[in-house]
Amino acid sequence: MAKVITSREEDYSEWYNDIVKKAGLADHSAVRGCMVIKPYGFAIWEKIQAQLDKMFKETGHVNAYFPLLIPKSFLSKEAEHVEGFAKECAVVTHHRLMNDPNGSGVIVDPSAKLEEELIIRPTSETIIWNTYKKWVNSYRDLPLLINQWANVMRWEMRTRLFLRTAEFLWQEGHTAHETEAEAVAETLQMLNVYAEFAEKHMAMPVMKGAKTANERFAGALETYTIEALMQDGKALQAGTSHFLGQNFAKAFDVKFLGKDNKEHFVWATSWGVSTRMIGALIMAHSDDEGLVLPPKLAPIQVVIVPIPKPNDDIDEVANKLMAELKAKGISVKYDQDEKKRPGFKFAEWEMKGVPVRLGIGKRDLEKGVIEVARRDTKEKASIPVENVVDHVEQLMEDIQNNIYNKAATFRDNHITKADTWDEFMDILDNKGGFVLAHWDGTVETEKKIKELSKATTRCIPMDGKAEAGKCVLTGNPSEQRILFARAY
Amino acid sequence: MAKVITSREEDYSEWYNDIVKKAGLADHSAVRGCMVIKPYGFAIWEKIQAQLDKMFKETGHVNAYFPLLIPKSFLSKEAEHVEGFAKECAVVTHHRLMNDPNGSGVIVDPSAKLEEELIIRPTSETIIWNTYKKWVNSYRDLPLLINQWANVMRWEMRTRLFLRTAEFLWQEGHTAHETEAEAVAETLQMLNVYAEFAEKHMAMPVMKGAKTANERFAGALETYTIEALMQDGKALQAGTSHFLGQNFAKAFDVKFLGKDNKEHFVWATSWGVSTRMIGALIMAHSDDEGLVLPPKLAPIQVVIVPIPKPNDDIDEVANKLMAELKAKGISVKYDQDEKKRPGFKFAEWEMKGVPVRLGIGKRDLEKGVIEVARRDTKEKASIPVENVVDHVEQLMEDIQNNIYNKAATFRDNHITKADTWDEFMDILDNKGGFVLAHWDGTVETEKKIKELSKATTRCIPMDGKAEAGKCVLTGNPSEQRILFARAY
Repeated sequence: MAKVITSREEDYSEWYNDIVKKAGLADHSAVRGCMVIKPYGFAIWEKIQAQLDKMFKETGHVNAYFPLLIPKSFLSKEAEHVEGFAKECAVVTHHRLMNDPNGSGVIVDPSAKLEEELIIRPTSETIIWNTYKKWVNSYRDLPLLINQWANVMRWEMRTRLFLRTAEFLWQEGHTAHETEAEAVAETLQMLNVYAEFAEKHMAMPVMKGAKTANERFAGALETYTIEALMQDGKALQAGTSHFLGQNFAKAFDVKFLGKDNKEHFVWATSWGVSTRMIGALIMAHSDDEGLVLPPKLAPIQVVIVPIPKPNDDIDEVANKLMAELKAKGISVKYDQDEKKRPGFKFAEWEMKGVPVRLGIGKRDLEKGVIEVARRDTKEKASIPVENVVDHVEQLMEDIQNNIYNKAATFRDNHITKADTWDEFMDILDNKGGFVLAHWDGTVETEKKIKELSKATTRCIPMDGKAEAGKCVLTGNPSEQRILFARAY
Repeated sequence: MAKVITSREEDYSEWYNDIVKKAGLADHSAVRGCMVIKPYGFAIWEKIQAQLDKMFKETGHVNAYFPLLIPKSFLSKEAEHVEGFAKECAVVTHHRLMNDPNGSGVIVDPSAKLEEELIIRPTSETIIWNTYKKWVNSYRDLPLLINQWANVMRWEMRTRLFLRTAEFLWQEGHTAHETEAEAVAETLQMLNVYAEFAEKHMAMPVMKGAKTANERFAGALETYTIEALMQDGKALQAGTSHFLGQNFAKAFDVKFLGKDNKEHFVWATSWGVSTRMIGALIMAHSDDEGLVLPPKLAPIQVVIVPIPKPNDDIDEVANKLMAELKAKGISVKYDQDEKKRPGFKFAEWEMKGVPVRLGIGKRDLEKGVIEVARRDTKEKASIPVENVVDHVEQLMEDIQNNIYNKAATFRDNHITKADTWDEFMDILDNKGGFVLAHWDGTVETEKKIKELSKATTRCIPMDGKAEAGKCVLTGNPSEQRILFARAY
């Protein structure tokens, strides 16, 4: 089988693009920066959605749906929010087209200008808090624990499939609480849900921490993040959870009558993850043969390939295995396409990251065995037919763990302490990964470090210990090391 | 309990609005014509989605996602499509806001005008066929059987929650086929999927048929519809399936190399249902006490109310029942709110259409019985505790069937033949429902009938028999009766 994708070593960025394309995950569209999520890529998103939705519901949340469009004036109501989100966005100014009097297609009808322009949501805090105002009167109406699955749009200048697109799919949770403590607890709970999802389902270890003031969500008092590490040593922010204090409640005048019979502003959180997670999933685990998927998020967990092609005996064994695997909740596809040779199919399913391949050959069957191949390690084994189902069931767990362990080892080996600026730059330039360094806590230094090194503050780790030290750039005093990295 | 909603007799339209509001299904938003789907309403949509998605996948379809925005020029490519969809739509003309130099919030940045305006999708045929062009080369690439769950926007002038809103949620299937016969079969298959869903899950009988040429989807050669009847005698189009011929393939130049080694244009279908179905569900079954939901689509199938309030004995019984009901796949809520009295709770859960209510009272428990109340018939029965679970399981089926049968009887009693114009008008004005009448087949007559009677052609029924007759308006010859009705 000819090499069909660029190797990671050759060009990591092209390797990523090749996988997205050759595995059939996504495609560019006719609209600048907007992607088409192809069926196989969308099937991964459906797995992600289903699991997260379950976890949200288990923690007491319900789904709802709020409008796509936001009146322009709403964005100005929260002072910091407008700075963060009212810039590069899609603006609806008219509500009608008309035939061009010159006969060349359709043009915007100038008489259909909107009184107030509408913005396609870049995030929904404003329209949601404007709605919550109507829903909240008393402490009895609280908490509101609401999530929405939706498309959002940010007019990004440079886009990359899944990682940064003008339109993307996400979920955004927006909760309203009686007390500050409750809202803080919710913020942390959802951070933990994201971390658990990333580690247990995506098999992707993450660092949990707080963003610096400068990197916070526009309008938040505190932003927590999960930061993952990609194989090229760059970090990727995979999900964020924000404690919004009373900022949006004040901006939209959302008050409730408390148990004390007094009026109070509501406390808020918001939290989200997006189709960006698919980009993280690809980059965390895949190799030069293509996508590697953790079994828990693989749309097809097992593929059966007849060697060299289907016949009655092979079909019989395949159908029996399929029924037994399905009964155990394992998804399986029998690739009966007679137009393609086995070698071609092997490469194709490897490219798509299917965790286990069963090769059923005529000669093997005579010996009562089946070839079982793992996608993650490329190991092959001849397994007696009667043991295949149990073996595959065990492999699902083994592969999930192995992928996680591999990524965790890589990540652990790429958290490096730096105490001088030279060390800091040396790690970034030659080793990559997270750098644990002291920082003097000022925005000026943070910006200067970014300018000089292209590394940004990723987070102040949740499990970080107080440790007196000197800022890696300015030498000014610091109380804790924080994580820096070059990032997506 | 005081009457909280307008009765159907008093004002059907207000009755509908009251249910939407009091059952917590949806709300108007700050954006003209756009609704907020509240958690309980959204939970019904999730049930609808889950079932339809299952049926789509069982018939071989996969999901994908295409861009929200469509270049203006795309709409002009299919001649009829532009007439139907390029009129009232949301037009994005700019991609940036800026601070108002006069200091009053944000304004549109005039320097960020798009070269070509973008339209928020009113439906996605154009952007999808523009994409399919890249995906289809050979007959081996066909069929494409793709569905998308998405939001769409049509700038409607008069809106009603769920029934007609500027933004709504829907699914749109877009398939590409090698032959005309295959595409026609797909169109009819999906019509049947919709009809089966409406009847078996929504408990709502529907008439299947073809739309007249004048009522077809813009760009379709044939539009099939399922038509339901509401309790006020008005019809509601609940889903459509379109045979698009080669119109979009020609407009977007989508050709394939056939088995005959020649180039051919691809054959197409599209089909969709939307959140409008929730409006139909409400109007088909509900009564003057509120929503009535078929068990298969009820987010909560059973509610347990302690009488007068929870205590250890009641909790114990309730928890046991909950566990047993959940084990049977029945969703159940135990309403432990101590701030509300049982009578208030009864009315509240009736308003929300929960199919079965279990009242657990202290005195009843001493006798070993529980009060089981059906939402559909309002019947109550004392059932021995040990039989409750089996009884409820049976009720799920009985209520589903009873709701369907009631709606079917109503519908069957409201299909009336008319042979003269006077009869036609008399039925519409005094009885309502579908009118089976002859029509001369011309658009002129169809429009005249609509103008005079406010009734529209609903469909040419699939099971209609050839029958020579005279047009109810013009007296010109006709070969088959078709269905007319006043409609939503």
